[in-house]
Amino acid sequence: MTMKELLSTHYPFWNHLSEEEQQAFVTCSTIQEYKKGNLLQDKHHHCLGIFLVQSGQVRVYIQSDEGREITLFRINPNEICTLSAGCVMEEISFEIMMEATEDSVLLISGTPCLRRLMGSNLYMENYIYKHIAEHFSDVMWAISEILFKSFDKRLAGYLEDEKLNRKSTTIQATHDEIAKELGSAREVVSRMLKYFEKEGIVSLSRGTIQITNEAKLRALAL
Amino acid sequence: MTMKELLSTHYPFWNHLSEEEQQAFVTCSTIQEYKKGNLLQDKHHHCLGIFLVQSGQVRVYIQSDEGREITLFRINPNEICTLSAGCVMEEISFEIMMEATEDSVLLISGTPCLRRLMGSNLYMENYIYKHIAEHFSDVMWAISEILFKSFDKRLAGYLEDEKLNRKSTTIQATHDEIAKELGSAREVVSRMLKYFEKEGIVSLSRGTIQITNEAKLRALAL
Repeated sequence: MTMKELLSTHYPFWNHLSEEEQQAFVTCSTIQEYKKGNLLQDKHHHCLGIFLVQSGQVRVYIQSDEGREITLFRINPNEICTLSAGCVMEEISFEIMMEATEDSVLLISGTPCLRRLMGSNLYMENYIYKHIAEHFSDVMWAISEILFKSFDKRLAGYLEDEKLNRKSTTIQATHDEIAKELGSAREVVSRMLKYFEKEGIVSLSRGTIQITNEAKLRALAL
Repeated sequence: MTMKELLSTHYPFWNHLSEEEQQAFVTCSTIQEYKKGNLLQDKHHHCLGIFLVQSGQVRVYIQSDEGREITLFRINPNEICTLSAGCVMEEISFEIMMEATEDSVLLISGTPCLRRLMGSNLYMENYIYKHIAEHFSDVMWAISEILFKSFDKRLAGYLEDEKLNRKSTTIQATHDEIAKELGSAREVVSRMLKYFEKEGIVSLSRGTIQITNEAKLRALAL
């Protein structure tokens, strides 16, 4: 697929751009590869532009000064992220981090031309703000989970989700990874997993969690 | 001021509405009064529309099943809230609560006509989504405070802000009110205030906090 085909397929405002604007949009777009663990954006540099995940996955999270992390949402193949163009919009002033959780290929449309195009084309601007509203909903969900749900339910919900995603009752993840995912401390995760093990819900070995009682896990996650 | 004058003064997309759309916007707008403590919107009914605060103040917050509250932001006179039109936008699916913190007069434009106008007028739609992006920033700020700042700093920051807002070192607020404001428990607030009192930062009496050492408070809030 050419860049033009890619952009016109994935961005519904394409047909509302003038020929000149389409050309500018193509010119400012590039394909970039990130290795697993690479940062796309950190607290001090938040100006990537809008991007489409072609393959891989991007995790969007916030981080405290002490390094505590909370995952806000993830962007999967064929999904678009516009929140990464924060610097183009004066309404967005918070700092978020983004990292590739797998080797990833992204189609990035950079900020200098976005700024110009958003200023001249109302359809494009509107598309981007609407997309931000969607992420807002994701973020509110993540935060309600963190603030309001008791940790046993959250951990059970996490294991249940992973089981469904991986189509397997064997989950490979370190306690540290789970802690970051759930915005908690490693010790808290280890303690709760030990508790689950005693309850006969999981069995634990190095880097692996085996779900041994699916019904009990599901009941807890509800 | 007539309704038409009010709407055209406060909503910048007014001039981009057709005459017919302007008329519809006027027709679906009403002035409503709320008493201090009245709920404008709760978890189950989140479809007020967009509104402008003419006088008073509206607090926007989330509430857990157990009743714990976290204030996200406040809307003061001449400010507009569009997040209250969540039901009109499929991107917004989270539940927020709103209450009048003072006797308030609001200019409300209801949802049935908003839905129609947002569908037909891109300028209006874009205005509303942009406004939501602003609230998103406010919410991210509130949440970072709650998740990442240690409570003594947050309480000190609150007292410092109140001092500046009220232009007085005497702050009238119950521990319960402060707890709700900061998304904490009353006991935690009381305990920390007691600690501040012992440190010579404040002196406490029923419903009143007197700041006695402004420099020390400021240092803590930083």
